[in-house]
Amino acid sequence: MGQGFELATAVTRVDGGTEPLAGPGDTARFATAVHDGWDINGVANGGYVLAIVGRAMAAATGRPPLTVTCHFLHPARPGDAEIVVEAVRVGARLVTVTASMRQAGHELVRVLATLGTAKDVGVRAMAAGPPELPPFDQCVGPVAEAGEDGAGAWNPGTDFQPPPLFRQLGVRMRPGDEGFRDGRPSGTAEIAGWFSFGDESPIDKIALLLVADAFPPPVFNAGIGPGWVPTVELTVHVRADPAPGPLRCRYHSDFVEAGVLSEDAEIWDSRGVLVAQSRQLALPPRT
Amino acid sequence: MGQGFELATAVTRVDGGTEPLAGPGDTARFATAVHDGWDINGVANGGYVLAIVGRAMAAATGRPPLTVTCHFLHPARPGDAEIVVEAVRVGARLVTVTASMRQAGHELVRVLATLGTAKDVGVRAMAAGPPELPPFDQCVGPVAEAGEDGAGAWNPGTDFQPPPLFRQLGVRMRPGDEGFRDGRPSGTAEIAGWFSFGDESPIDKIALLLVADAFPPPVFNAGIGPGWVPTVELTVHVRADPAPGPLRCRYHSDFVEAGVLSEDAEIWDSRGVLVAQSRQLALPPRT
Repeated sequence: MGQGFELATAVTRVDGGTEPLAGPGDTARFATAVHDGWDINGVANGGYVLAIVGRAMAAATGRPPLTVTCHFLHPARPGDAEIVVEAVRVGARLVTVTASMRQAGHELVRVLATLGTAKDVGVRAMAAGPPELPPFDQCVGPVAEAGEDGAGAWNPGTDFQPPPLFRQLGVRMRPGDEGFRDGRPSGTAEIAGWFSFGDESPIDKIALLLVADAFPPPVFNAGIGPGWVPTVELTVHVRADPAPGPLRCRYHSDFVEAGVLSEDAEIWDSRGVLVAQSRQLALPPRT
Repeated sequence: MGQGFELATAVTRVDGGTEPLAGPGDTARFATAVHDGWDINGVANGGYVLAIVGRAMAAATGRPPLTVTCHFLHPARPGDAEIVVEAVRVGARLVTVTASMRQAGHELVRVLATLGTAKDVGVRAMAAGPPELPPFDQCVGPVAEAGEDGAGAWNPGTDFQPPPLFRQLGVRMRPGDEGFRDGRPSGTAEIAGWFSFGDESPIDKIALLLVADAFPPPVFNAGIGPGWVPTVELTVHVRADPAPGPLRCRYHSDFVEAGVLSEDAEIWDSRGVLVAQSRQLALPPRT
């Protein structure tokens, strides 16, 4: 089992403090780096950047993320970066913080989050379960392999290159959902599939922040794009610790109208537990 | 047409500034008040509190809200309050800010938001439309009237009183969705219905922040509760200016598990445009 994700999201506290933030206004500062290879055409994936911030927030509070909202301000590039986490409210069970990540004088992201673990009071009401998927090896990669039908055609008619990000990830789409790759979108703004790390790094609550933004935009399958889909805001509800094994994921853009695109994800573990749910507000690609 | 909502969410800038926030770190301070009568048993409705903050953010930036995330820290009670809005990023089209509302030494809410209007690039892909509803007058109020079947039984077996909030609002539920009122939950965690203000105040983008949290929790119809459903975080995507007239709304909790409850809303105007979409992470009532 690899450590690629853990290494690529490592943070080091640099303010001299070692204790969790104890009250409103307390801060912790971290040094970190945006690693090469987690990008789409040179811009680091938003979920990856948020996972780095998630690791800093967890280190600053001693708690796992519960609900995390990130506003994307400036593209992140490989290189050193710094993170400041500031406590807003420190409760017995839940801690609310803001976090900011900066690089070369630019603020990359601003985050508002509550961390901690909800107490399971034993009620359950689920409108849906995990998507039905063929086995991992019978699902389809997000980028066509050389020699495969549609190879290199992820964004026909442009010089769009296969994103380096997907070398890090074991992303496998449900057959039929890959139509956007070769100019045959399915007609429905949905992509379901498996998620793992390419090196089988363990998937923890921090990694779920990345998983929420790890697949190609499902709106491509509605015939919108392919092209750059800038995320304005991403909110991830981190609901449970994932059991070992690949995750079943469903990404869907139900509402694209008036220049606004929503993208939702539901992420399920091998037990069938909903481990994360996310929604982002993005802007449609200008095609 | 009334002005009740506008008056109940009025803010006054008190830092002497009159210009919109121009760059990162710029702040604007506002005096405001939480008004009596917008509460559930003495605690002001979260959407109402968020609307007050929304008005301050709009005044500070000269732009309407686009995506707004609120973390609820402390219950708001009727009385004076103050709001500080701080710019994070000021772009040509979109402005990102944080905002904080305080009352009697407590921080009530912390907000992270991006304001501005998305440019309509003319693409559209909608997986669903507004809910089918009988006419407003054939729908059902959220609190049983005296003499009506189930009157006063909103929360059977407790001393729960009809929330004062609903005197301000014209909330009318689709017949069949009111079962939770009298101990006959429909079995599905969904409530659809009409929204207007009781005094027919106009519904603008600020009001949509309230609408997102204005109905009884749909989880009551799954037989969970009735009871207090504390919201940890509420995110509202304010997608378009509502056309005049009551709004068609659908509230649903699709995933209740492991001590975490999500509640989504889709809010449609009289033209059939999706004017707002929201999701909150809340904790199930302890019944």
